[in-house]
Amino acid sequence: MSRLLNPSTFLFLLGCLSLSILQTPLSGSNKPNVIIIFTDDMGYGDMSGNGHPTIKTPHLDRMAYEGQKWTSFYAPAPVCTPSRAGLLTGRYPIRNGMCSDVFWVLFPESTGGLPQFEETLPELLKKVGYKTGMVGKWHLGHLPEFLPTEHGFDSWYGIPYSNDMDLNRPVVEALNGGELGEWHTGIHWDNPRSEYWNVPLMEGVTIIECAPDQNVLTKTYTEKSIEFIKANKDEPFFLYLAHSMPHVPLFASKSYKDSSTAGIYGDVIEEIDGSVGAILQTLKDLKISEQTLVVFTSDNGPWLQFKTQGGLAGPLRDGKGTTWEGGMRVPTIFWWPESIQPGLVHGIGSALDLFATLQSLTGAKPKQTPEDSYDLSSTLRNGAESPRKEMIYYRGPRIQAIRLGNYKAHFERQAALANPPIVTALYNLDTDPGERFDLKAKHPKVIAEIQALHQSHSKSIVPAVDQLAKR
Amino acid sequence: MSRLLNPSTFLFLLGCLSLSILQTPLSGSNKPNVIIIFTDDMGYGDMSGNGHPTIKTPHLDRMAYEGQKWTSFYAPAPVCTPSRAGLLTGRYPIRNGMCSDVFWVLFPESTGGLPQFEETLPELLKKVGYKTGMVGKWHLGHLPEFLPTEHGFDSWYGIPYSNDMDLNRPVVEALNGGELGEWHTGIHWDNPRSEYWNVPLMEGVTIIECAPDQNVLTKTYTEKSIEFIKANKDEPFFLYLAHSMPHVPLFASKSYKDSSTAGIYGDVIEEIDGSVGAILQTLKDLKISEQTLVVFTSDNGPWLQFKTQGGLAGPLRDGKGTTWEGGMRVPTIFWWPESIQPGLVHGIGSALDLFATLQSLTGAKPKQTPEDSYDLSSTLRNGAESPRKEMIYYRGPRIQAIRLGNYKAHFERQAALANPPIVTALYNLDTDPGERFDLKAKHPKVIAEIQALHQSHSKSIVPAVDQLAKR
Repeated sequence: MSRLLNPSTFLFLLGCLSLSILQTPLSGSNKPNVIIIFTDDMGYGDMSGNGHPTIKTPHLDRMAYEGQKWTSFYAPAPVCTPSRAGLLTGRYPIRNGMCSDVFWVLFPESTGGLPQFEETLPELLKKVGYKTGMVGKWHLGHLPEFLPTEHGFDSWYGIPYSNDMDLNRPVVEALNGGELGEWHTGIHWDNPRSEYWNVPLMEGVTIIECAPDQNVLTKTYTEKSIEFIKANKDEPFFLYLAHSMPHVPLFASKSYKDSSTAGIYGDVIEEIDGSVGAILQTLKDLKISEQTLVVFTSDNGPWLQFKTQGGLAGPLRDGKGTTWEGGMRVPTIFWWPESIQPGLVHGIGSALDLFATLQSLTGAKPKQTPEDSYDLSSTLRNGAESPRKEMIYYRGPRIQAIRLGNYKAHFERQAALANPPIVTALYNLDTDPGERFDLKAKHPKVIAEIQALHQSHSKSIVPAVDQLAKR
Repeated sequence: MSRLLNPSTFLFLLGCLSLSILQTPLSGSNKPNVIIIFTDDMGYGDMSGNGHPTIKTPHLDRMAYEGQKWTSFYAPAPVCTPSRAGLLTGRYPIRNGMCSDVFWVLFPESTGGLPQFEETLPELLKKVGYKTGMVGKWHLGHLPEFLPTEHGFDSWYGIPYSNDMDLNRPVVEALNGGELGEWHTGIHWDNPRSEYWNVPLMEGVTIIECAPDQNVLTKTYTEKSIEFIKANKDEPFFLYLAHSMPHVPLFASKSYKDSSTAGIYGDVIEEIDGSVGAILQTLKDLKISEQTLVVFTSDNGPWLQFKTQGGLAGPLRDGKGTTWEGGMRVPTIFWWPESIQPGLVHGIGSALDLFATLQSLTGAKPKQTPEDSYDLSSTLRNGAESPRKEMIYYRGPRIQAIRLGNYKAHFERQAALANPPIVTALYNLDTDPGERFDLKAKHPKVIAEIQALHQSHSKSIVPAVDQLAKR
């Protein structure tokens, strides 16, 4: 042995080792903590830093100032369930059956959920030693086999689906004087009460309360998140905080009631902003902010049908449920002091990309590389051009639009994945973010490129069993 | 003398003097420099800090972060000439004839201008020792008796009216191959040339060039502004920088061509943003930033008819020329390190208020207190509630809408100042900044209050001779 390890050999081996360390810059103790804060139905225009005139979001604005604000960042889908499936798997939800022509999202009567063949973000990160916690709304299957703790989360505190589901009809009728009120579930939206909904609050696989007081949901989610951070501060952790708000019915805790002049919607956003502030402050207090990447984004655009109880898409067209920009382009901020180059990013990104990005940042090896996920880490670290050049806008299992570079083509509604796709309008999103000026006649080459992308993408799709249609 | 000035008397006199200094906190050397940067047709949504997805305005965003961003700040009118008259006098332009039913603004054929009976901001500030300089677009009368140097400015470098005026028809026809092109003056807006317009560039009362190269207007304005600041750094100065851009035709200097992916409109805004950055940096370099109040605002909303060559109103409705919010609510930032409490201000303000505010900050005494101007200095200094509770939206000499608190009523088009005003719609701007949900039927009391304000305001008006109709 002594002959083998003569000084020059030793130095050579040491050199190799150093080189190998340099080539895997984020191995070992360098693994950053990761927090994803995911809001529900928050619009592009619902931050003061994105131009909302009467909602104050100083913590988000500061987070954007210290970090990177992405202005072309897309939710994977324009509604809840498929968007969340995309976020956790890095794949368009058509690949795992989490989108459907029958129902937009999962309902309390549904019996489907995220299939076990999918590898999720927490499953990926557990491979490299992360503690994984989830707080908030799941909406990827509420039967026992689909719950967060079956999909890689060590712990979960939250509700299994939307806060307006599982209507408590007798209670609503009794409290409304024998009548059912307005819109889809019969609620007086101006004065909703938590008792109207039977939605369960769960911890792990246990229901701890039915019809919980929704006024304290955001507050409690925040407290539980901070508890998780404190308990895991000494090891790499992954926290997925999926707020139930600002999805209707809207509720805010006492200290935020009337905090805003924009009504209950404003109060709710300001409480979420306060929650972001409290979480970032916790990281600073624990002196782990430089080891923690925080991502803030939304599951889809504002639910405009709810008028002043829905948010604003700012300069973008339309909102939730549509494949106009307002439906899928969402307010997004990345924050990681000393590691992210602060500034604005106009390049394209998507919540689909968190999978490949976290894979890259942590060195975790996935079961298989997710087809639809781009590694954004170079953009985060040094402002390099985003590798994502396209976005496919699915509504259920149908491709309704495709963005390629700065151009976006909308397609005629058609059978799922049918070809050839017929383009109804073409917009230059860089010069016309509001999708007002159709350029279809002017750019036949661009249209041909987008049609080709439609076909190549469609060929790559093997539709999975529709999980949302199961009852 | 020695008997009179015994020690106790001396101390008493010293005490009186100190008290008097304390009671006039901004006298003498405490007078802040004042810079007003006024853009032309820039929309509420044209800053990245107000949600523009493809225009980068890092300097404005930083200015907002360090200072106060006002989200309900109004131009005095929805078009150029009356808006500027309001800014410089603190009075609705109907009081001085700078609005009209005949023409919206002054044209090269006009023979009217801002009347001499008006006291302007620079005239006010000269009374307390300010050096006053103007750079940029005037548009308050181009005949010799109406020029900036006749209205209180020691110096002026700029153009007398809009950069799309005084069409050089033979040149346009020659360059267009014998034809006149598109819209109002016959220009191919996608590829305009400075030679198309005879607009004069002036210094004081002298025309130094006709049809100047508009590509360098913003750049030259910036250089002239910095020269003025440097030359006057040791005494209180007032600089009014009224950019010609982003009014069409759009031009940017070489270093900003294609700086933005949003097209020439984006380049132009990014050059203005760079200009703001250069000016603030100059103040820092000269170590006078803590003695200088900088106000950034716009003369009216975006000119939407110019499509991708017009700006964005963000979440607001409509644009230039209208009394919808998009026409008059403008991006506005106050910056004055160590003297302004940084943050967002949702209270109402207007460029009309700069008069009373600067009067308060400098101790200057006006000829007579302008009726329509509120002192915003307490809001600037410590975030106190804005004293302005209402805004009257004039279109020409007609009141088209009134905001009182968070409610805004639109009136039926009617004879100027006719009574009683008929309300066509009522909006709650706090919960509905996009003016989408009419509440007319719900709030008769609010409507009555606004109608009463309409009547009391109208009674206070003695319409002046229409200066815009003069030819």
